[in-house]
Amino acid sequence: MKFTKMQGIGNDYVYVNCFEENVEDPARVAKLVSERHFGIGSDGLILICPSDVADCRMRMFNEDGSEGSMCGNGIRCVGKYAYDHGIVDKPQISVETLGGIKYLDMQVEDGKVKTVKVDMGVPQLTSELPEKIQVEGKTLEFTGIDVGNPHAVYYVDNVDGLDLEKIGPAFEMHERFPDRVNSEFIRVIDRKHLQMRVWERGSGETWACGTGATASAVASMMLGLVDDTVEVQLIGGNLEITWDRESGHVYMTGPAVEVFSGEIDLTQYNGREV
Amino acid sequence: MKFTKMQGIGNDYVYVNCFEENVEDPARVAKLVSERHFGIGSDGLILICPSDVADCRMRMFNEDGSEGSMCGNGIRCVGKYAYDHGIVDKPQISVETLGGIKYLDMQVEDGKVKTVKVDMGVPQLTSELPEKIQVEGKTLEFTGIDVGNPHAVYYVDNVDGLDLEKIGPAFEMHERFPDRVNSEFIRVIDRKHLQMRVWERGSGETWACGTGATASAVASMMLGLVDDTVEVQLIGGNLEITWDRESGHVYMTGPAVEVFSGEIDLTQYNGREV
Repeated sequence: MKFTKMQGIGNDYVYVNCFEENVEDPARVAKLVSERHFGIGSDGLILICPSDVADCRMRMFNEDGSEGSMCGNGIRCVGKYAYDHGIVDKPQISVETLGGIKYLDMQVEDGKVKTVKVDMGVPQLTSELPEKIQVEGKTLEFTGIDVGNPHAVYYVDNVDGLDLEKIGPAFEMHERFPDRVNSEFIRVIDRKHLQMRVWERGSGETWACGTGATASAVASMMLGLVDDTVEVQLIGGNLEITWDRESGHVYMTGPAVEVFSGEIDLTQYNGREV
Repeated sequence: MKFTKMQGIGNDYVYVNCFEENVEDPARVAKLVSERHFGIGSDGLILICPSDVADCRMRMFNEDGSEGSMCGNGIRCVGKYAYDHGIVDKPQISVETLGGIKYLDMQVEDGKVKTVKVDMGVPQLTSELPEKIQVEGKTLEFTGIDVGNPHAVYYVDNVDGLDLEKIGPAFEMHERFPDRVNSEFIRVIDRKHLQMRVWERGSGETWACGTGATASAVASMMLGLVDDTVEVQLIGGNLEITWDRESGHVYMTGPAVEVFSGEIDLTQYNGREV
């Protein structure tokens, strides 16, 4: 199986061009290739497939083999792959996902895509603005934002000093969020810059979360803390979030990087299944 | 740069055939390619080079860019690569390393190397047999073995239940070992099988340590706990260790696996340097 490894601010997947390759049992392949010592090593597998309703279709499988609906960092790489490898011949494209059809606007330099702007849809406020909450005996405030998945945005004085491994689960599993929640911890640097760390539902701390950055930016805009275009600084890199209050749509712009291309013989694969 | 990703019981490196490729500044390349989200992802970089004194030469760079002297799991993969890719045309070869010339004996099936036997040299006892030691207020016994690097072998009742993250540093940094030490925690299953976990000097717990398995087996043989051929079961897989008391040499046999091949454009590399 031919593949390309790509990453968006450190969120890395194995991408397969299913206009040319046929991947049987992608859930199993995702588990095999994701393993970082015995396989290729990635956060999961993304298939770039033909679509009847859009320019292409993205199917995303997590490292445990489960199929995900959308990934903000992944879809930017899908756009770059589709353009750079000639699957599409225009910089504005539509991509079918389990989370609906998404629209990408790609910035091209020297014939290659550098950054991609993704229409993340219309975010929904899911709490008071802000709402008080008790976490482990302390009274805090959060703002709930849904951008296809649920987020709770908290403002803290010292993002770097947080012991997220210790406190993250109490936020994720809080009774206020019976379906659990992604939690963002934010510091407002100035009206154009936010610093963020994220505790993802089911994954723990990650270096990059596109929907989390989007939710954090929108919460901060709703609260009047920042302008309607803001740079969110994550551990893995930076994303620019712009909110068009008139249409309600929020846009995420960030890099997409092709790291290497390779070929793996899955019929001969004699690593161990984990 | 063309490369091949290989692993031996989960100890994975990026291998480059320097009979065909020229790698400038391998310390920097090792850091770039090792990074698991922004690079290829590996425990380091191993160059397979021409040698004036052996069939080929292995240069090994850790993920921090430092050059290592030897790696038991890595050298098995060097042997497999050299044979499978036609650098050598015989299954017994010599490999120049910073730790001296090593001799490999490869088992070939269907034209490909499956397992490799490595002459690990003559181990040296570096303690009493066994020696008492106080670690965090408790009296324990260890056996010190040097197989090119220093090891301390401890017998415990429950290998799986050890909280190595917590206790490992106290063993590694113990005043008895001013240069620090690799610590193995061993359970004797029967006279032909050992279970082992390892806390590596400078790396913490790893899934596989070829020199540690060798040291643990030899200590157990010296203590009369096992036969002179034993299977050591590590988290990443199994190694067979045989001690020839007559010559003093100890041999390690284990698998070598080619996972995938790829190509990365380091001149265009725009991930981040970490």
